[in-house]
Amino acid sequence: MENIFTDEYFMKKALLEAETAFEQGEIPVGAIIVVDNRIIARSHNLTEMLNDVTAHAEMQAITASANFLGGKYLKGCTLYVTLEPCQMCAGALYWSQISKIVCGATDEHRGFRAMGGKLHPKTEIVYGVMEQECSSLMKAFFKKKR
Amino acid sequence: MENIFTDEYFMKKALLEAETAFEQGEIPVGAIIVVDNRIIARSHNLTEMLNDVTAHAEMQAITASANFLGGKYLKGCTLYVTLEPCQMCAGALYWSQISKIVCGATDEHRGFRAMGGKLHPKTEIVYGVMEQECSSLMKAFFKKKR
Repeated sequence: MENIFTDEYFMKKALLEAETAFEQGEIPVGAIIVVDNRIIARSHNLTEMLNDVTAHAEMQAITASANFLGGKYLKGCTLYVTLEPCQMCAGALYWSQISKIVCGATDEHRGFRAMGGKLHPKTEIVYGVMEQECSSLMKAFFKKKR
Repeated sequence: MENIFTDEYFMKKALLEAETAFEQGEIPVGAIIVVDNRIIARSHNLTEMLNDVTAHAEMQAITASANFLGGKYLKGCTLYVTLEPCQMCAGALYWSQISKIVCGATDEHRGFRAMGGKLHPKTEIVYGVMEQECSSLMKAFFKKKR
């Protein structure tokens, strides 16, 4: 039987979250966290609605997953996020010891690689899954803003 | 008239928060945020109680201050924190554009300088205020844990 649970399958779910953010006037970033092909957290950027710079999609997904799992470490979990994490989110992911991160679009200026942050040595990271779609949504948002 | 509102004055308040964390079995880090000599947020590390790696003292203080001010940028604010921020907290502080950070103890291994994070160019930072007291509390905590 064909495995439907590919990285693209889950990135599409994260992208749906990003689209919800877009519709709400938030910078369109979405995230989900998956364990054993089960989605345990869905979130999107809420910095404008909550007036809170810490309300990035990844931060909410980390908190929600820890809550769901009843423990603060996200071993065995995979984060799908439509934009490369910033240094704040990379730092939170570092502390969580999450097993895998799958990113859509690259953030050249504010991504953790540009800013100099670090992930946990136990964390695997994959870039560029549905990059075009994730990136197009970001571009459409900033074009609308101008 | 003598100015009682020195960096030491406010760091003592942050240290009281750190002592509360210590008493609760949390890694003893405390933070306060001040505007015009008025304390607008007090917090301490709650990662164990909340089972949440994002519940650092600084993160809570940023969220509480933004809530108090009704806006997400912390211009004109000063953070007093008993330990040098990690990359997650440095990243959150970056986004907040906070005006000033005053640190107590240095975190050689997990501080944002060791991990490679960046603060906002508008943010001034001062190290080593009541360093001895802040550092002693950390050492006492880890000694007790062993």
